[in-house]
Amino acid sequence: MEIFGPTVQGEGMVIGKKTRFVRTAGCDYRCSWCDSAFTWDGTGKDDIRLMHPEEIVRELTALDGSPPDHVTLSGGNPALLPQLGALIAALRSAGAVVALETQGSKWQDWFLDIDELTISPKPPSSGMETDWAALERIALRLAQGGRHFSLKVVIFDEADLVYAAGVHLRFPSIPFYLQAGNDHLGEKDRTQLLKDLLVRYEWLVERVVADAGWRDVHVLPQLHTWIWGNKKRRIRRQ
Amino acid sequence: MEIFGPTVQGEGMVIGKKTRFVRTAGCDYRCSWCDSAFTWDGTGKDDIRLMHPEEIVRELTALDGSPPDHVTLSGGNPALLPQLGALIAALRSAGAVVALETQGSKWQDWFLDIDELTISPKPPSSGMETDWAALERIALRLAQGGRHFSLKVVIFDEADLVYAAGVHLRFPSIPFYLQAGNDHLGEKDRTQLLKDLLVRYEWLVERVVADAGWRDVHVLPQLHTWIWGNKKRRIRRQ
Ligand code: SF4
Ligand code: SF4
Repeated sequence: MEIFGPTVQGEGMVIGKKTRFVRTAGCDYRCSWCDSAFTWDGTGKDDIRLMHPEEIVRELTALDGSPPDHVTLSGGNPALLPQLGALIAALRSAGAVVALETQGSKWQDWFLDIDELTISPKPPSSGMETDWAALERIALRLAQGGRHFSLKVVIFDEADLVYAAGVHLRFPSIPFYLQAGNDHLGEKDRTQLLKDLLVRYEWLVERVVADAGWRDVHVLPQLHTWIWGNKKRRIRRQ
Repeated sequence: MEIFGPTVQGEGMVIGKKTRFVRTAGCDYRCSWCDSAFTWDGTGKDDIRLMHPEEIVRELTALDGSPPDHVTLSGGNPALLPQLGALIAALRSAGAVVALETQGSKWQDWFLDIDELTISPKPPSSGMETDWAALERIALRLAQGGRHFSLKVVIFDEADLVYAAGVHLRFPSIPFYLQAGNDHLGEKDRTQLLKDLLVRYEWLVERVVADAGWRDVHVLPQLHTWIWGNKKRRIRRQ
C-alpha cells in the first residue's frame, strides 16, 4: 500500500477531482508502457506495507488533518485483492466517495460498492491480450447490480484506436473515454515532455473529431503528467 | 448564431466530450477578461445570423454528415434568449444531448430541459457584481425541477478563490469546478502561452490541494486553449 495526496485526479471520468490515493501492489498484466511498473516489477518492494482498513483511513486523514472526501484506489490491479471490500466499506463510512480503476480482467463483488468505477481494457500497444469473456461478464454483473461505470482506453497508435472503436461498439451505452498515451516515460525535460504530450493529445483529438464514426466519446489527456511530468509519485505529503 | 465543430469541449463538467457548438450573440455582462467579447462588442456583428431551429439542426448535421450526438450552447449569455427553448427541443428530438453554460444572472424555463447545465458566476477579477438573489432563485428552481447542474468559477487570483469558496459554501451539494483563467489572451507565441497556462493551472492545483478547507471540488484547465491557443474559433469545418 502506498498512500498519498491530496492531489488532483489526472485522468478519466473524474479528471480534475481533488482526491487522495491508495495504491495497491501487484498486477496480472505486464503492459509495455506501464507507468506503475514499480508496483509489480520488484523495484517498489520496500514500499509494500500490509495495512488494516482503519489504519489506512487514519493515514488518509493524517495527510492534511481532514477526513477524506474522495479516495482513488489504484494499482497495479486492485481487483486482485478480495480484501479491498473491507477498505471500501471503511472509506465509505468515513464519508468518502470511492473511485477505482482496473483493466477488467478480474471480478470482485466489491465492484458493486465503488462510486466511480473505470474499466480500462488494454489496447494492442500494451502487448496484452484482452479476455473479452471476462470483460463482458464484468459489464453484465455491473449492469445487473445497477452500477454505473465508465470505459477508458489509452491510445498510442492507429491499431489502438481500432481496438478502442471495437470496445465502444461492444458497450455502446457505457460512457467512453479515450486517453492520449504518454510514450515519453523517460523524458526528463519538462518543456520537451509537455510539447510531446500536447502533440499526442492533438493527434488524438484531430482523429476523433474528423471521423463521424466516433460518437458519444470523451477525449482526454493525462493531466497529471502535464503538471508533474514523469515523476514516480504525483505529490506526497507525509 | 455561430455554428462549429465537431470539436472537443475544453472546460467544466463535460471536459473532453466530442461536441458541436452553437454560439449565441449578446451578453448582459462585460467581463474584463471575456474571451468571447466578439459576441457582444460589435466586432462579430457580421457573423450574426437569425436562424430557425430546423435550419440549425440541418447545419449541425452538415458539419460532418452525421446527426449531432452532443451539442453545446454557448455565448455570450444564451439565457438572454427565451426562444432557445424551441432549439433545445429540436436538438433533443434529433437525438442530441444538450449542454449549456451561463453566468446565472437570468432564468429561462428551458433551463429544465438542458442535460448538462453549468452555472458559472463571475469572480471579482471580471469586474462584474454577482446578483446573489438571482443565483439563489435559479438554483432553487433547478432543484425543484429535479435538474442536476454544476457550478464553475474561473480563477485569476486570490480574491477570486475567496469568492469561489463563498459560492461553494452557499451551494455545498452542487458539483463544483474551479477553472484556471487565461490572462494571456494576447499571447501569440504558443510555447510561451503553454508555459503561462501551465503555471496558472499548477498554482491553482497547489492552492487547492494544500488547503484542507477545499473539499469535494474539481480543478481543471481550459483544455482548448492549450490545444488551439488564443484563436477566436476552436475548429471550424464548414
Ligand atoms: S494493467 Fe495497469 S498496472 Fe498492470 S501492467 Fe498494465 S498499465 Fe501497469
Ligand atoms: S458572461 Fe461570459 S460572454 Fe458575458 S462578458 Fe462575461 S465571459 Fe464574456
